Amino acid sequence: MTAALPPDLLDRLVFDRDGLIPVIAQQHDSGEVLMFAWMNQDALAETIQTGRVCYWSRSRKALWRKGESSGQVQRLVELRLDCDGDVLLARVDQTGVACHTGRRSCFFTALRDGKLETIAEVLVDPATLYGG
Amino acid sequence: MTAALPPDLLDRLVFDRDGLIPVIAQQHDSGEVLMFAWMNQDALAETIQTGRVCYWSRSRKALWRKGESSGQVQRLVELRLDCDGDVLLARVDQTGVACHTGRRSCFFTALRDGKLETIAEVLVDPATLYGG
Repeated sequence: MTAALPPDLLDRLVFDRDGLIPVIAQQHDSGEVLMFAWMNQDALAETIQTGRVCYWSRSRKALWRKGESSGQVQRLVELRLDCDGDVLLARVDQTGVACHTGRRSCFFTALRDGKLETIAEVLVDPATLYGG
Repeated sequence: MTAALPPDLLDRLVFDRDGLIPVIAQQHDSGEVLMFAWMNQDALAETIQTGRVCYWSRSRKALWRKGESSGQVQRLVELRLDCDGDVLLARVDQTGVACHTGRRSCFFTALRDGKLETIAEVLVDPATLYGG
């Protein structure tokens, strides 16, 4: 463990069978839902301690310090949990873009009249996000 | 299957090992994140067909037509998916309250100075939601 969770919080949270909890990241002022990811206890403790959002990457099986390579960091503004304690809502201030495609939010595809439409523009060239 | 999913959508979605996909429900105009739940293919197909949000209850292992008992229904305004196709964002119009506690949103608990605080009021007596 890199840091301890506040006992008040730990008592209320329910992690799943893989030791993870889902996290919704929302831009704190606009209300835009930016992305969805997962945390384990270590990621959550680091997020609270540093004020920078850190997830757990299920594909890499490692801590995922959001923006560490790309610079597109998320500053934690407020952490909320749901009534069952098994989902987190991270109200954040997103620098630049949340999505690896260079769009502000990962939810840029909408179903309209039975077809999928791209409803948001690429704001940052993805090559510049992970090129370094 | 009660209804078929649009092929365009089905091709892009990734359901987890339990055949489920996570769903974030957001009030379409205010941006408030109301709740988080899961759908299987049947629930999603019914949601699209009827325009009323239907989840999959993992505890009851049954379709969960939101608001069927309580009257607190969610009308689907727009369905979005994330860049990986493994999370849905349901932009909805929530009648009354989303949470079984009688609060508008399930995310009514915030971590402030290491302590959990209730930040939203009960708007509807929970006894009236499920009393029938």
